[in-house]
Formats: sequence, structure tokens, C-alpha cells
Amino acid sequence: MSNREATEYVVKMRRYFHEHPEESFKEYNTAKKIEEEIKDMGLSPRRVADTGVVVDIKGKSAGKMVAFRADIDALPVTEKNDVVYKSKNSGFMHACGHDCHIAMALDISRYFSANRDFNGIVRVFFQPAEESPPGGAVKMIQEGVLEDVDYIIGQHVGSDIPSGKIGYRAGPSNANADSFRIKIKGRGGHGSAPHKSVDAIYIAAEFITLAQTIVSRKVDPVKAAVVTFGTIHGGYRHNIIGDEVEMTGTARTQDMETRALVKSELRNILEGLCKLTHSEFDFEYEEGYPVMVNDPEITEKIASVASGVVGKNNVVEMPQKMGGEDFGYYLQKVRGAFYYLGISNEKKGFTSSNHSPTFDVDEEALPIGTRVGVAVIKELLAS
Amino acid sequence: MSNREATEYVVKMRRYFHEHPEESFKEYNTAKKIEEEIKDMGLSPRRVADTGVVVDIKGKSAGKMVAFRADIDALPVTEKNDVVYKSKNSGFMHACGHDCHIAMALDISRYFSANRDFNGIVRVFFQPAEESPPGGAVKMIQEGVLEDVDYIIGQHVGSDIPSGKIGYRAGPSNANADSFRIKIKGRGGHGSAPHKSVDAIYIAAEFITLAQTIVSRKVDPVKAAVVTFGTIHGGYRHNIIGDEVEMTGTARTQDMETRALVKSELRNILEGLCKLTHSEFDFEYEEGYPVMVNDPEITEKIASVASGVVGKNNVVEMPQKMGGEDFGYYLQKVRGAFYYLGISNEKKGFTSSNHSPTFDVDEEALPIGTRVGVAVIKELLAS
Amino acid sequence: MSNREATEYVVKMRRYFHEHPEESFKEYNTAKKIEEEIKDMGLSPRRVADTGVVVDIKGKSAGKMVAFRADIDALPVTEKNDVVYKSKNSGFMHACGHDCHIAMALDISRYFSANRDFNGIVRVFFQPAEESPPGGAVKMIQEGVLEDVDYIIGQHVGSDIPSGKIGYRAGPSNANADSFRIKIKGRGGHGSAPHKSVDAIYIAAEFITLAQTIVSRKVDPVKAAVVTFGTIHGGYRHNIIGDEVEMTGTARTQDMETRALVKSELRNILEGLCKLTHSEFDFEYEEGYPVMVNDPEITEKIASVASGVVGKNNVVEMPQKMGGEDFGYYLQKVRGAFYYLGISNEKKGFTSSNHSPTFDVDEEALPIGTRVGVAVIKELLAS
Amino acid sequence: MSNREATEYVVKMRRYFHEHPEESFKEYNTAKKIEEEIKDMGLSPRRVADTGVVVDIKGKSAGKMVAFRADIDALPVTEKNDVVYKSKNSGFMHACGHDCHIAMALDISRYFSANRDFNGIVRVFFQPAEESPPGGAVKMIQEGVLEDVDYIIGQHVGSDIPSGKIGYRAGPSNANADSFRIKIKGRGGHGSAPHKSVDAIYIAAEFITLAQTIVSRKVDPVKAAVVTFGTIHGGYRHNIIGDEVEMTGTARTQDMETRALVKSELRNILEGLCKLTHSEFDFEYEEGYPVMVNDPEITEKIASVASGVVGKNNVVEMPQKMGGEDFGYYLQKVRGAFYYLGISNEKKGFTSSNHSPTFDVDEEALPIGTRVGVAVIKELLAS
Repeated sequence: MSNREATEYVVKMRRYFHEHPEESFKEYNTAKKIEEEIKDMGLSPRRVADTGVVVDIKGKSAGKMVAFRADIDALPVTEKNDVVYKSKNSGFMHACGHDCHIAMALDISRYFSANRDFNGIVRVFFQPAEESPPGGAVKMIQEGVLEDVDYIIGQHVGSDIPSGKIGYRAGPSNANADSFRIKIKGRGGHGSAPHKSVDAIYIAAEFITLAQTIVSRKVDPVKAAVVTFGTIHGGYRHNIIGDEVEMTGTARTQDMETRALVKSELRNILEGLCKLTHSEFDFEYEEGYPVMVNDPEITEKIASVASGVVGKNNVVEMPQKMGGEDFGYYLQKVRGAFYYLGISNEKKGFTSSNHSPTFDVDEEALPIGTRVGVAVIKELLAS
Repeated sequence: MSNREATEYVVKMRRYFHEHPEESFKEYNTAKKIEEEIKDMGLSPRRVADTGVVVDIKGKSAGKMVAFRADIDALPVTEKNDVVYKSKNSGFMHACGHDCHIAMALDISRYFSANRDFNGIVRVFFQPAEESPPGGAVKMIQEGVLEDVDYIIGQHVGSDIPSGKIGYRAGPSNANADSFRIKIKGRGGHGSAPHKSVDAIYIAAEFITLAQTIVSRKVDPVKAAVVTFGTIHGGYRHNIIGDEVEMTGTARTQDMETRALVKSELRNILEGLCKLTHSEFDFEYEEGYPVMVNDPEITEKIASVASGVVGKNNVVEMPQKMGGEDFGYYLQKVRGAFYYLGISNEKKGFTSSNHSPTFDVDEEALPIGTRVGVAVIKELLAS
Repeated sequence: MSNREATEYVVKMRRYFHEHPEESFKEYNTAKKIEEEIKDMGLSPRRVADTGVVVDIKGKSAGKMVAFRADIDALPVTEKNDVVYKSKNSGFMHACGHDCHIAMALDISRYFSANRDFNGIVRVFFQPAEESPPGGAVKMIQEGVLEDVDYIIGQHVGSDIPSGKIGYRAGPSNANADSFRIKIKGRGGHGSAPHKSVDAIYIAAEFITLAQTIVSRKVDPVKAAVVTFGTIHGGYRHNIIGDEVEMTGTARTQDMETRALVKSELRNILEGLCKLTHSEFDFEYEEGYPVMVNDPEITEKIASVASGVVGKNNVVEMPQKMGGEDFGYYLQKVRGAFYYLGISNEKKGFTSSNHSPTFDVDEEALPIGTRVGVAVIKELLAS
Repeated sequence: MSNREATEYVVKMRRYFHEHPEESFKEYNTAKKIEEEIKDMGLSPRRVADTGVVVDIKGKSAGKMVAFRADIDALPVTEKNDVVYKSKNSGFMHACGHDCHIAMALDISRYFSANRDFNGIVRVFFQPAEESPPGGAVKMIQEGVLEDVDYIIGQHVGSDIPSGKIGYRAGPSNANADSFRIKIKGRGGHGSAPHKSVDAIYIAAEFITLAQTIVSRKVDPVKAAVVTFGTIHGGYRHNIIGDEVEMTGTARTQDMETRALVKSELRNILEGLCKLTHSEFDFEYEEGYPVMVNDPEITEKIASVASGVVGKNNVVEMPQKMGGEDFGYYLQKVRGAFYYLGISNEKKGFTSSNHSPTFDVDEEALPIGTRVGVAVIKELLAS
């Protein structure tokens, strides 16, 4: 298999999945396409957790089992890129790069299916619903994806790293990724008579501005926290005072004390604000993926192997991030680590953040992702 | 026709229309039912303006033509009343009492069709889309509803007047009822990375709180103004920073200078806020129904006639209101006046404001509305 | 006495008092100067209420007693006008025109002392502390200033009326002028550690923004209300989180129900906000001067007499204002009215509002004020 | 010298200085008292930088010179502790523990003056104005306090460390401590006429709430930043709309990029807000003490020596803090380090933060501070 072919395959796959994004827990066509590709390699995929796919590739003799995980779901974002491979599933988009993750995991599977001169087993698996807590990892584990696994590896494309570079971090690497849902309940009425109503839209707006102070004044400045309101919906018509507004959001923290503080302050501000505005509220706070903790020794191996592929200067230590990842659940069970593949490229115009409607990747990074993945797996098989 | 029968008819009709509310400009079934009822009276309705209905009832000899107008559209409100006549068209509700207006106009038609001993012509007409500017009145006028009309009368149910009373006001009686649509345009991104995005939901929230100062600090305190945000919609998902939020609202004023001020301050606040938040905006401001000006002489007649029906103590002068009404367009062409029928009743629990999801009326007021309407028309025919 | 002389006197007096403003209840030098001027006219002033001055001017024979009142205190404003008669008492300024009121009242006294061919008594009196509730009127009444008085007249310079015009209004003419004092009590600490403190300055800021909604959303839009924060003081140093902030302000309303609503909402917002910010508060609300109610018949006389002086077109009906005036206390005891003397002049650059540090008056209006005052008094003496 | 005596001396001194706090750059009596104490020890103090004091204590023979620095100024805080040693200089308080710093530095001087069996010179110096940038350190350096110095040591009492413990940190240890001064310039007027004025107090309030988003949304969540408004003053009187408000505050950051962002966003928000409120502003931003960088090797020595005094378990590594310190200027010239002395004690009720009006220390910690200081100096003299 020439490099050129490999590139063509990984890019072809990435573009296929980019054009066909699917919602978390509903990746039916995605799973079907993955199975087809794997079967075309002469391998035998098996379905788990409804839309998850697992394939085991056996080497020439017995040895360690190394798992490589790709997440496969898309986001409810309407793509704003004007590209030939633009999402055809309106309202959904691979805005977090899982299309790349699938493509590279297939490419890695293809490599090992064609190059069996290793000891042990390479398990490549495709997990649903990373974007949507409780997430697909818990279910995959329940259905046995970690059985007999010695080490596990995950790879994520990062818009904060230039194409050609690899990022790593030992120990706690990201955030508690919690979600909340808030409903403000006022009293509707005619738009011209605010004094006879309790205006839920105004109250929701005030709540969002008041909640800024959780991060600006309540959390220890040397600790990280984010409170983001991701959606807001309320009201019926321009001239009717709305009786209900619903907001959802995410709260990110890097330690348990701050997590508890953010949660209690959200409730506290709601209580005070609803008291002063004569309104009521519903508040649901769901603790999401916990902080992911990478094995230091395996992280060290990844950094070293990656240096061999991209050069020492292109391997960079990352700060602890605010993102959530359900890969952390695997690391609670099995030794392993998660690392990052740079995909931004200012010259080519790939500068948008993950999750934005204009997110896109420098596809020249994808064969690098394949090569690093292959090299890391080989190193761990040999360890 | 006994009183009892009349009551039964007006209540039956009111409940029918209450159960079957329709959107502004789409009152097809409503118009059809009105036509059927009118035909049942032996009269010949004609369709105008797509969903409008007009019927002329001729007296025993020639004379003045007096028009009586009812508006027929419902609001996009989901009814929260637990009543046998609850709206069956989910998401729509006669929350402004137009069901009553139709029922009383039919009842009045029924009266005059059975009692022809008057000179002149009574024109009863049913207008679409009072709730949705540009409104149905303009179209009705274009299609000739005012031709040959000498005087025009309109009646509205008011939750601010107890059942059994009639309200009137000479001269300027309500508000400029304008609407606006605002879109905040930020830059989307991952919910955990606010520093890389421009959070349209936060900006929209800040805008709503800042806009409070138009009324509290910018408008002359002795002048009336309302700025209400009726809807807000934005974002995709709890963990994505939304790039767009759309808000609609209504601005109410009672004079032209204040109207201009409110409009310019909305734009001014948007410009300053978007500058400081690195965002952009769209702003559309539509001038809606102008202030309605009742003819003082005809208002005087209405007050006098109403005193005969409900007693002098039950006829009350109303303050200038903040509501909008496209009846004002008729009054720019023909002499006439608009008056109010009390329908609240604290003992019976009818206390919710017009436009609220729990709005309901004391149905014992409806035959009073019919009787006042009939008496006013007779007085004007005779004048 | 020629007109020219009169002008020179009233302007000279106005400038003298403008240069020497004094604080409410402490107008010692002002009262002394007034006494001297009155003595120079051959009249016998008497002191009341510490810094008040009263003088009775007897006509040729017995008759009615008509009182004319001038208020004499200045405001704690630092003058920003660059004029030869600029305030010499730094930090105080006649920014509400009481210097003019004194000057015209002296000028009127001078006129009647020189022209005794009237029946009855003209009582001119100079009242302290109109700007500072509980105000000087209450004390003046207690000390007998209204004894034997048949009618009472007051005149105020208004920046909202062009020089050369007179404004009048029958019935309720201004506002309940209440004041409040609020202290926010947090917990101090190092400026770098907000999470260990409760930041009273932030909370005060949030309170001021939240309080905007009393006027924008809680008060009936067709009713007038103002909530102004006039002072704010808090904190110790840029790098210390302040534990206390004190604010004072004024609340203006034109009816009792709205007055009660504004007061209760201020408290309500404080309670909710302090709950959500873990802080405490002190709240004092003092009901100030009540709405002033002018006698309609006497107002009619004033308008008529003023037309004779300035021409019918220059006599204008005023809207009900938001200002407070303790003249209302006199009108609760004796028949009378209050009217306005125009003093703005765009061409000459006199456009600043009363109470602003650049307030100034077109002095050509002052002799008009004298003439209208004299004419009104004569009319009432003759009635 | 017995331990008991030593304790008595350090506590006596601490209480003396606590009772007599003085403003930054005006520590005249403090310096005088320090000189007297030093003279009583038989030493020869010299004045530098107006209110600074330096004393050199020579050992038995030549060697290294080790400097020990104490800062001596107090804060403009009104003490709220009810203690026998309460501040007698109303409005000022040693709320940051510099009273302890002086007392321990005197105690250390006393020790070395009585125990000369060391090689080299111990230079103890007392620096004015640590609390008030540009600070006293710059001036002390200009006047030669670092001449011939080999190592420099500073010690600070910390309310975040329990009494009995010592805190240390190598490398960057605190924050850029910048200050700003903002004036909002509106247009004054009568409190009842907001529409004719531009209300500087409302605008300042809005600015403080808007500025919260610098930390909550603009700064990278994994980077530390604080924006505190320490003072606010504006307005003249409850019923006058204020034309000016002045605010001061501090901005804390731990890196240069975030420092620049905070500064530019403060300006940016001011510009946008003043545009939308028709007001103007002044903005001064002064970069204060830079991040202090402790020498790792000397920090290691301090931790090791401190372990010998208080036990290994009582020596703790500190996180990078948000406080500022002009000790950093010395470390730019001479090798050295800064460390922390625990003084909080929950059981005894010493829990208030530095800079709060109820800040107080567990005095049993003070002799520990002396002992650690003496031991560290000895170690460095011997190195």
C-alpha cells in the first residue's frame, strides 16, 4: 500500500462521513458503512451497543491486546462551509472531527489487516455518542469492548494545534463536562402590559448576565471554570409576553470542589432572581464525563513514538483543557492514554474551532494521524 | 327571539370559535363557518380579502349605512385553561377574545335580520388578521368594505373591565403598535472555549437587560412607552456556543416623538453592544398600527346609549391604552368609534389578561355586548 | 421706578445671590441680605424658621391678604459656568434658580412698598430649604406664615419653557418626590481574591441595573415613575474589595398606588439580590413632598392675568411634571396656585436643565416674572 | 535571650505597630520607632528613601551579605476588630500584616546583634509603600539597598496557611498587579428628568456588570485573571443626576498575553458602552508590580531549613497566587526568594483574609517567623 493510496483512502473516507453526519445514538448508516469497509478489508466486524462496531485483527502470534477507539457521532450544527463534501444531512455536521476519527481508525485497520507481522491483537472500535452524555463509552464497556484489552489509545483532532504536530498530556487532561437545563416560569400576557405579567424572557436574560459572576467572582481565580448557555428558547409571538423560557448549557471545571460550587451558585442565583422577579424555575443539573486521567508512562511512549514520526519539535505538551471526553471511562478500567492530532492551518484557512459551523481540517494531517496511530499500537504491542 | 335563545346562541357560537382558533390570514374554516351561520339567517354573505366576510342587512327603507366590525383571528398561544370548550387546534388560542367578537357580530346580524323595522343598511363584517401587522383592515378597505358606509363601530372585550360594564374614550385611545426583529450574530464554537467564540446568547441576554433603560431612562417619564421582547430563539445544543440568536418584540408608544426615540435607541444600543462584544446584528423595525382616534361625538353617543343598557354607573371612561388596533385605519376614512365590553369577573375566576394562556371571559357579558351593539347601531341609523 | 431701574435691580440681586449660594437650612447670609434689602425699602422684615424671612406690605386700606413665596436655598452642585457671577461658595450653586426667585420676590416687595394704592396686605416671604425634605414649608407654616392669608402664589423658573412665556396647570401638577438610602453590606478582602469576599461594589452595580425594571416592566406604562440613583460611594482603595456601598436616590410618582409599588419593588429587588449574592442591606425610604394641587379657579386667573403681560400665545398649559415642591403643603391649607416662568433661550445658549452644573437663565425673563407676580397679586387682592 | 522574652518582644512590637498604622510613603512615625528600637539594640540604622530604614549587622569575620526585607506601610481600611491593640489611626489599619513583618525583622535584628558568631553581614531593611505602586522597592534599590548584597529574603504572613506552617514556591509565584482608574462622564440634571440627562451612575453600574465578562468569557478559562473594582464615587445628592463617577480597580493576571487582553477589553467595553449611552470616559491603566520569580535553588534551601524548624509536614508548596508584590524588583537584581508564614487559626477565630477589616493573626506564629528567618539567613551566610 503506497502512501498515496493510503492518503486517498483516508481522505475519501473522511469526506464520505463528513457528507453523512448522524445524531448521537442514531449513527445507523455510519455503523453500516463502517462494517462494509471493514468487511472489504477481509475482516469480521461485530456490532455492539446498537450503533457501535468492533473489529479484532490478529497478528502472527499471541501477545498483548491493544485497543484503538474512534468516536463516530456528529453534532446538531448546520454547516456553513462551502465545500464539495458539505454535510448532506441538514442540521447536522461533523463539527468536532469525528469523521476524521472514523477515517483514520479505518485506515489503521486497513494497515494492520494487510500487515500481520505482529504479536497480539489490535482491536479497533467505533463508539457512538461521544457528544451526548451519558455517552457511548459506558455502554461499550458494558457490552465487553474492554475484555482482554491490555492498553487503550484514543486520538482527537485539535483546532488548537497546527497540522503536522502531535499534542500530549500526562495525568488529568481535561474537564468535568456537566450539563444543565433551566426553565424560567413567569406569567404570560399582552405585550403592551408588562405590569400585569411576569416576563420570562427578561428574567432569563437577567439570569444569563448574573451567572457570569460565578466564573468572574465566585470561583478561585487560579482554578478553571466555564459556564456556557448553549440554547435559549422562549415566547410565542412578538406582541405576547412569554410565560416560559428554556435554557440549556454546560458547566466545565477541573476539580470537584469547583464543580460543586458552580452547581450550587447556579441554583442560588436562580432562587434569588426568581424571588425578586416573582417567578419560578426548574433546574436540572447532570454531572457528565469526569476528568480524563492519562497514564503517564503510556503518554511518555506516545510522545516518544510521535517524535519518530513528526520530529521532536512537532510534539508538544498540552495544557489541561476544558473539554469533556467519555474516553476517561475506559481509562478508569484499562491503562492507556489519549493524544491530539493537529489539523489547523492558517495559510489554508483552517482556523475555526471545533464545534463551530465553519470547522474544517487540513486533510494532509490525516495520514499523519494514521502513521502515529499505527506506530503507537506497534510500540504497545511490543511492550 | 327570546333573550334566553339569544344567550344560548352567542355562547354556543363563542365556544365553537374558541374550540377552533386559526392563525392570522389563514382563518379559512372560521370564515366558512361564519358564512354558513349567516346563510342560515337567510342573509347573503360575501367573501373579501381571502378570509374576510361581509353581510349587508337592509332595513325597511333607505337611510344611513352603519358598519359593525368584528376581528376573527387567534393567537399562537397554547391554551392552559381546563374547560370543555378548550382549543382543539394545539398551539393556537382565542386569547384575545376574537371568538366573542365573532359571536356577538353574528348575534347582532341575527337580530337585525329578524328585525327589519329600521331605515338604512346595517353592514356587519368579519375582518381577518387583526393580531398580525400589516393587519387585515388595510386589505378590507382596499376591497371596498367602507364603500357607502356613514359610520363604523367596533367593540372589544377587555379583561381590565368587570363584566357588566362598558368602557369608552374619545380621541387618541391606544398606542402605536410597532414590531421589531433582531438577530445577534456572533461566532460559534465549543462550549468549553468561550474565549475563542463570540457568544450570541450572552449578547442577546445583555441586550435585553440594556434595552430596559429605553423606558426607564431615555423616554420622558410622563410619556408612555413599552419595549417587550416576545420571543427569543438561539443556539444548537447545550455544549456548543451559539452563533446566532433571533428575538422579536413590540414597541408601544402614544406619540410620534417617543416612537422615533424608542426606535433609534434600540438601534443605538445594538450598535454599542455589538461593538463591545465583537459581534454583528440585523435590525428590522416595522411601524405597525397607528394610534386609533375615536370621533368624540360618536363616542359620546355610545356612552349615552350604553348607559341606557347597563346603567350610567357602569359606563366608564378609559385611559389611553398601550394596545394596538387596526380599527384605527377605518377611523382614518369614516367617522366612528371603538368601545370596550367588560368581561372579567373575579368571583368566577376570570382574571387573566388578554393574550395570556389562561385568558377566559365571563360569558354572561356576551348578550350585553350584543344589546349594546344593537342599540348603538340603531342610534346611528337614526342620526 | 422706571423699567430699566427695575431690571437693573432684579438682575443685580439675582447675581448677588447666585454668587453666594447656601445649603438648605443654613441660608444665614442669604436671610441677612434679604433683611437688609427689605429694610432699605423702608419695610420691617421678621425672621421665622431660623433662616426664613417674612414681610407684610400694607395697602391704603383693609382687604384680602395675598402671600407670595420665594424659596432661597441652593444645591450641592459645583458650578461649571464660566460667568462673572459664578458661585463663590465652592461646591454649592443656585442650580435650580432660587437666586431668581429671591430677586423677583424682592423686586415685587419693592414695587408694592412704593405703590401702596391697593386694599389689603401683600405678604412676601422667603422660605428656606425647598430642596431638602422635610423642607422649609412645614416649619414656616408651623411658625404662622399662613395666618390670615387668603391666597398664596408661588412662581418657579423653568428650563423647559422659553424666556418670555408663562406656564400653568390646574389640579395635580407634579410628583410625589420621595428619597431613599440603601447600603449594601458585603465582606471585604484582598482585591485579588474575590472568591473569599462578597463584593459590595459589584452588588450595588447589579442593583442599579436591576432597579431599571421597576419603571420598564413593573409600573403601568401609562403611569409616570422615575427611579434615580443620585449618589454612590463605596470602597477604600483600588486593590481592596469593598465591604460597603451607600447609594441615595429619588423615586417620583404621580399617584399613591404607583408610589407604593415602587417602594415595595425596591425592597423586593434588594432582598432577592442580596440573597443571591450572599450579602445584606439597609433600606430607608422617606416619603417626601406630596403631589401639589393647584386651585383651578386661581390657576385660571393666573393664566388670564399672564396673558395680559406676555400675550395669550405665550401662556401655555404644562403637563403634570415629575418634580417635587413643598409649596404643595401651603396649598393644603390655603387656596392658591403655582406657575412657571420661562427662562431658557437657545440663541443665547441657556439650554441646561434645572439642577445641572451648567444651568443658567436668560435674565431678560426676570422683570417679566416681577410684572406677572405683581399683576397676579393685584388681581387676587381685588377679587 | 530566652524564647519567652523573644516572644514577648515580637508580640509587643507587632501590637505597637498595629496600633499605629501609617499610609504608604508617609510612614514617618513607623520609621522613627524602628530606628529607636534598632538603636536600643546597639546598632546604627540609616534612613533611605525618606521613610525606609536599613541596618547592617556584622559577624565575627568577613563573608557573604544576606539581606532580609520587611515592608512597613498600612492600608486605608477602618479596623473592625474589637481588640486591645486596635488601630488608633482611624481609617488606617495593618490589614495585610506588615506590622508582623516589622516586628519579626526587628526580632531577627535583635537576634543577630546579640549573636555575632557568623561570617559576613546581615542586612535587615524596612521598606515603605509595598501596598502602593510604584511601590517603595524601586526607590530603595535606587538608593543602594542592594549594594554588596549576595542573597535577599522576604517573608509574608498568609491567611491561607494555618499557623505553624511555612509555604514556598519556586519560579513565578504571583501575579501582574495592575491598577486602573475610570471616569464616566455623563450630563447632570434634575433627578426627575432622566431623559434630559446622561446618568453617569447608571452607566458606571452597567460598566461594572459588563466587565464581569472579561473574566467569564474573554480570558482563556485555564488562565487566571481577576478584575476588581475597589472604589466607586459619584453624584452630588439624591435628587440630582450625577454627571461624573470615578472608579478604581485592580487587574490581576499571570501572563503577559492575558494582561494585554484584560487591558484592551476594559477599554473596548468602555468605548462600546459610552457610545450606546451617549457618554464619555477617561481610562488610565497602570501596569503595576510584575510577576515575582523566586530562585529555585534558594527556594529549595528555604523549604529545607523550614522543615528543620516546623517539621517536614508543615512545609507546603503554594500555588501561583493572584497577589502582587514589589519584592519581585529585588529578585530581578539579586538571587533570593520570598516565602509565606502561616498565621490563620480557625479555633482561635483568625480566619479573615488579608486586606479585610477583620484581618488578624495568631501571634503564636510570630516567633516561628523569627526562627525561620534566622535559620534561613544563617544557611545562606554559610553557603
